Amino acid sequence: MNAEELKRDLKDLATWTEAALDRLVPPAAARPAPLHAAMRHSLFAGGKRIRPALCAMWAGACGADRTAAEHPAAAIECLHTYTLIHDDLPCMDDDDLRRGVPTCHKVYGEAVALLAGDALQALAFRLLSAMPAPPEVALACVAELAAAAGPGAVVGGQVEDMLSGGLPPDAERLLYIQRHKTGDLIACACRMGVLAARGGAAALAAATAYAGALGEAFQIADDLLDATSDAAALGKTAGKDAAQGKLTAVSVYGPGGARERLAARTADAIAALGPLPDGAARGRLAALARYVAERRS
Amino acid sequence: MNAEELKRDLKDLATWTEAALDRLVPPAAARPAPLHAAMRHSLFAGGKRIRPALCAMWAGACGADRTAAEHPAAAIECLHTYTLIHDDLPCMDDDDLRRGVPTCHKVYGEAVALLAGDALQALAFRLLSAMPAPPEVALACVAELAAAAGPGAVVGGQVEDMLSGGLPPDAERLLYIQRHKTGDLIACACRMGVLAARGGAAALAAATAYAGALGEAFQIADDLLDATSDAAALGKTAGKDAAQGKLTAVSVYGPGGARERLAARTADAIAALGPLPDGAARGRLAALARYVAERRS
Repeated sequence: MNAEELKRDLKDLATWTEAALDRLVPPAAARPAPLHAAMRHSLFAGGKRIRPALCAMWAGACGADRTAAEHPAAAIECLHTYTLIHDDLPCMDDDDLRRGVPTCHKVYGEAVALLAGDALQALAFRLLSAMPAPPEVALACVAELAAAAGPGAVVGGQVEDMLSGGLPPDAERLLYIQRHKTGDLIACACRMGVLAARGGAAALAAATAYAGALGEAFQIADDLLDATSDAAALGKTAGKDAAQGKLTAVSVYGPGGARERLAARTADAIAALGPLPDGAARGRLAALARYVAERRS
Repeated sequence: MNAEELKRDLKDLATWTEAALDRLVPPAAARPAPLHAAMRHSLFAGGKRIRPALCAMWAGACGADRTAAEHPAAAIECLHTYTLIHDDLPCMDDDDLRRGVPTCHKVYGEAVALLAGDALQALAFRLLSAMPAPPEVALACVAELAAAAGPGAVVGGQVEDMLSGGLPPDAERLLYIQRHKTGDLIACACRMGVLAARGGAAALAAATAYAGALGEAFQIADDLLDATSDAAALGKTAGKDAAQGKLTAVSVYGPGGARERLAARTADAIAALGPLPDGAARGRLAALARYVAERRS
């Protein structure tokens, strides 16, 4: 699959994701309306929907229709969106802009934004609990998401990232941050796609290896964009990592080293697809890995 | 069961709950240590462990050993503790004291406290996903907790409570706040106890009716305590509701009306126990309802 085809594929999957979210998330007028409006503000403020796309693609790679991945795809986007809302709060990154629109707390106030994030996390688990699938499949997805969202995963990565301001370059710590802050949700998206499709152990292992490399690549690309883009291109404040003295791929490896590492991890992700029997699925997931490495926003 | 026996029973169940939490929650030294220390600070800062006790008592009323309710009991306490941490944050109630000790953000800072709450919510679902029970039982518990923790339940109640400052007395709105801010987690605790014990539909209906009345009684008792106690007796700042012009049972019904309503709802809770075949279990849950109505802190 070439870059143009992948872009059309991603656009189609984003439309599919947004339709699922619109159907599965309570309407903005549901009581209490400010809470539901705040949840929807952040859920529908754009976003590339990469995690739901990965979930659907891995379900497809295991021979299932993407419908099987609908609840996990919507759940991972709810979970991801909650982390963004909380990351943007004044006591965290204090960001005014996200995906080119005002952040949740700028529109709805800090308290409602905090609670909208809390509610989105609960909703993610509710969507999984209501998956049209055998209970052991839904429960396996719950276990995946709960582990990825927990203190040893995405929240732990966020804490280490936050505490990394002003620290000297430390490749081990950077790897921990990349793996957990970014990698765990990406791996969860891929693995839930396999689980929803009732894929076997080989597919699950391939998804884990692919996502491990892709997650690191994704975060390196993010760090490079933060260091080299402007807010107009990025849809959020740029140059914040350096301003805060954050530990990033750029601060640890330099821009050239970060680019080399990005290329190597992208190649690792593509190599991890080897065991997949379906050539078209391999081509699609490889194109996505290249897209992550080359994206400009 | 008389009041003294109930107190010993609750103390024993609190010890059991704390032992389960200590075993099931990662150690304070787990990476990242500040996050795990903050989670444990709030989890082990006292608390009456009423929700885990309800979960164990309802499992017992359905003929199961309390061991069957261990994961749900620990999960509901993690979930409840996360809501307390977030409620205490400066952008919410801005409380310095909880259960007689400094609140999480006073000790660990706002960002780590926010993330400790987030991690405790994820951990609650992880504990349910790892229940030693058939997948359909664990998944039913996940569905209960996810619904109770969601935007139409505990978070929704919190939003309406927060937005109630300065509003004129409004019994309908007060009922919404009581039902969701307090009642939904209490109902979830009781219902997960029944589910964990594989109790039938009649037990589930009895748990729902009991918890509905108990949840309202619990919140009325809380409102009366806030209006009439001091911080030394309460272990947290007193008189805050009136200072913030909050909608409470006292502001809507007056102290006398609130006490009458508390007595009526306590009687309703006890009456709901009728269908339970086990007289000792009925006596125990009735004693707990009376304890909630009469507690002094």
